[in-house]
Amino acid sequence: MRRRNGKHFTPVRAQKVLVELGERSYPIVLGSHFIHELGARMHAARLRSSRAAVVTNPTVGALYLERVENALRHAGFDVVVIEIPDGEEHKNLTWLAFIYDKLVGAQLERSTPIVALGGGVIGDLAGFAAATFLRGVPLVQVPTTLLAQVDSSVGGKTGINHPAGKNLVGAFYQPRLVFIDVATLTSLPRREFAAGLAEVIKYGVILDPKLFALIERELDRVLAFDEAWLRRIVRRCCELKAMVVQRDERESDYRAILNFGHTAGHAVEALTAYQQYLHGEAVALGMVFAARLSCSRGLCAAATVERLTSLLRRAGLPVEMPQDLPRERLAETIQGDKKTSGGKVKFVCIEDLGRTRFEYFTGTEIAAHAA
Amino acid sequence: MRRRNGKHFTPVRAQKVLVELGERSYPIVLGSHFIHELGARMHAARLRSSRAAVVTNPTVGALYLERVENALRHAGFDVVVIEIPDGEEHKNLTWLAFIYDKLVGAQLERSTPIVALGGGVIGDLAGFAAATFLRGVPLVQVPTTLLAQVDSSVGGKTGINHPAGKNLVGAFYQPRLVFIDVATLTSLPRREFAAGLAEVIKYGVILDPKLFALIERELDRVLAFDEAWLRRIVRRCCELKAMVVQRDERESDYRAILNFGHTAGHAVEALTAYQQYLHGEAVALGMVFAARLSCSRGLCAAATVERLTSLLRRAGLPVEMPQDLPRERLAETIQGDKKTSGGKVKFVCIEDLGRTRFEYFTGTEIAAHAA
Repeated sequence: MRRRNGKHFTPVRAQKVLVELGERSYPIVLGSHFIHELGARMHAARLRSSRAAVVTNPTVGALYLERVENALRHAGFDVVVIEIPDGEEHKNLTWLAFIYDKLVGAQLERSTPIVALGGGVIGDLAGFAAATFLRGVPLVQVPTTLLAQVDSSVGGKTGINHPAGKNLVGAFYQPRLVFIDVATLTSLPRREFAAGLAEVIKYGVILDPKLFALIERELDRVLAFDEAWLRRIVRRCCELKAMVVQRDERESDYRAILNFGHTAGHAVEALTAYQQYLHGEAVALGMVFAARLSCSRGLCAAATVERLTSLLRRAGLPVEMPQDLPRERLAETIQGDKKTSGGKVKFVCIEDLGRTRFEYFTGTEIAAHAA
Repeated sequence: MRRRNGKHFTPVRAQKVLVELGERSYPIVLGSHFIHELGARMHAARLRSSRAAVVTNPTVGALYLERVENALRHAGFDVVVIEIPDGEEHKNLTWLAFIYDKLVGAQLERSTPIVALGGGVIGDLAGFAAATFLRGVPLVQVPTTLLAQVDSSVGGKTGINHPAGKNLVGAFYQPRLVFIDVATLTSLPRREFAAGLAEVIKYGVILDPKLFALIERELDRVLAFDEAWLRRIVRRCCELKAMVVQRDERESDYRAILNFGHTAGHAVEALTAYQQYLHGEAVALGMVFAARLSCSRGLCAAATVERLTSLLRRAGLPVEMPQDLPRERLAETIQGDKKTSGGKVKFVCIEDLGRTRFEYFTGTEIAAHAA
């Protein structure tokens, strides 16, 4: 037993999940209260450089930057810090250019790793900067939100938003290391934590009925930030994500199952100008939309939809589209989604927990369902 | 014999060079007077879409856009044209954003190919847009300059410039097809054609003494735009480039031999604000610089340097650094190059025609040599 920040905790040996992608393989190292090991873990991932650039935001920086800097310096990295204002509205070309300027100004070399310390916005933005600066420098993801730990930090999707839509510009670029300290989740606002749970629940729905049942059973402990349960659940999500990415790295087909709930979810986010819902909350709405769509086509039982809706509600997530959202605009926006093919929109539908299929819907069908 | 534009020419069956990179393999199709086959060649490369975006500039557009559009429409592609002003100064984030806006505005889908019709600037800029729009859409390179045909269109380097240096931002992103019509070279200004020859001569120096000797012997016919010789030489360069890229796609080590002449060349371009020299001209100066550096370290014979210098001069290329270029600034700028490692600068040196080695030089050594 050691004491830190006035709390007792038992150090637990970090666990490893390997994402196997040939020469682009990398480890996800997962533990709690082990940020001080970050530099050493980077060495172990064969990242050798006299410097490292850390991209973060003021909120996350205030909590963890000092510890991250110490860990990196201790391992021999001189640290360049690049701070981006907090919020999805900064995941754009302007702030990407800001990062490039800082990287150029610091004369970073091809071997210098970029460490993305923060949530999905930082991971996507810093990840895209790493993918494109000098045509690619090593990337280390240090996700500090549940959403980023179970989803966005793993698998190599990086990118920025365009006024016309989210993630319209980006790259598939795998990190060299994902370093997950679930203890950082305890500092998350409850609402953001719940939003991350939406993606956890998504894995259960599309791939793992046992995980779904586990969350149903242990939700209270998870919501109480029980670290042992967090490690177990985050680890399982990482394993599932790794499995999907290994099978289809660049989303030729199979990987698209991860978009369950995202087609309508993205539309809701766009229509509410990214102000009303967190990404995970919009995904919760989108999952209910897709589940009901599946049910209406006779693909799954109403009871499955109900089980999903009920769990989302218990997790504190929205399940009904807001009354004031114009249903016609919702249908139109869904049709503008980048995953359209020849005018029809591809949805990830469910047949049961753990069983999905892709189905195409016309604008008319979507409009009828949205109404 | 057919007649077009008042000239006689014999249609010649197009030739193919395959760039073998596993799932990223693609053909280089090379011929003359066969732009009308572009759409069919895209089909053959399994590019199926109801639309295609063509990125070009007004100079190239005036010469070839109509033929390209006809070829694409004939093959069933609706064409969206995106025009970028001519010149290296437009290979930047502003014009990249312009392309994104056009692509978003036209609601292009993931399967829609982007056709880069033009020289190196268009290829790099449109290539980077293709690499990053929707995290990657199919790219077709239709290079119309000698430089682009023998070098920049093959191998997947895409990117944009930063005020601090060339190509500081970019991606490795392989095209799905490279379509080379050497007949387009006849419309090139003589100076630009000679600049392209610098890269052709480079291949001879670093990889193929026979090619070097061939150019020495046939230079007059090449300078007279003899199409048979152009096809032969461009094809050989493409084979050599393919061989290098196959061995080391992402420039971990071997591919860097293609940078012969580029380290000092880039510095000359930067110091003259990209105004005084075309890229190939700067590379010619850089090759002489690197060859003399090799010689001064005792790596190659003075006669080899002389043979190179003499051929470059005959091709109409500069071989002596301009008198008014401050030598100290030249040395400094070389040191700021992105290929530095731990302060020393890596040069591709030559031991003989066709034999290279990497050597590292300190700032002091470079300064002494530049003086």
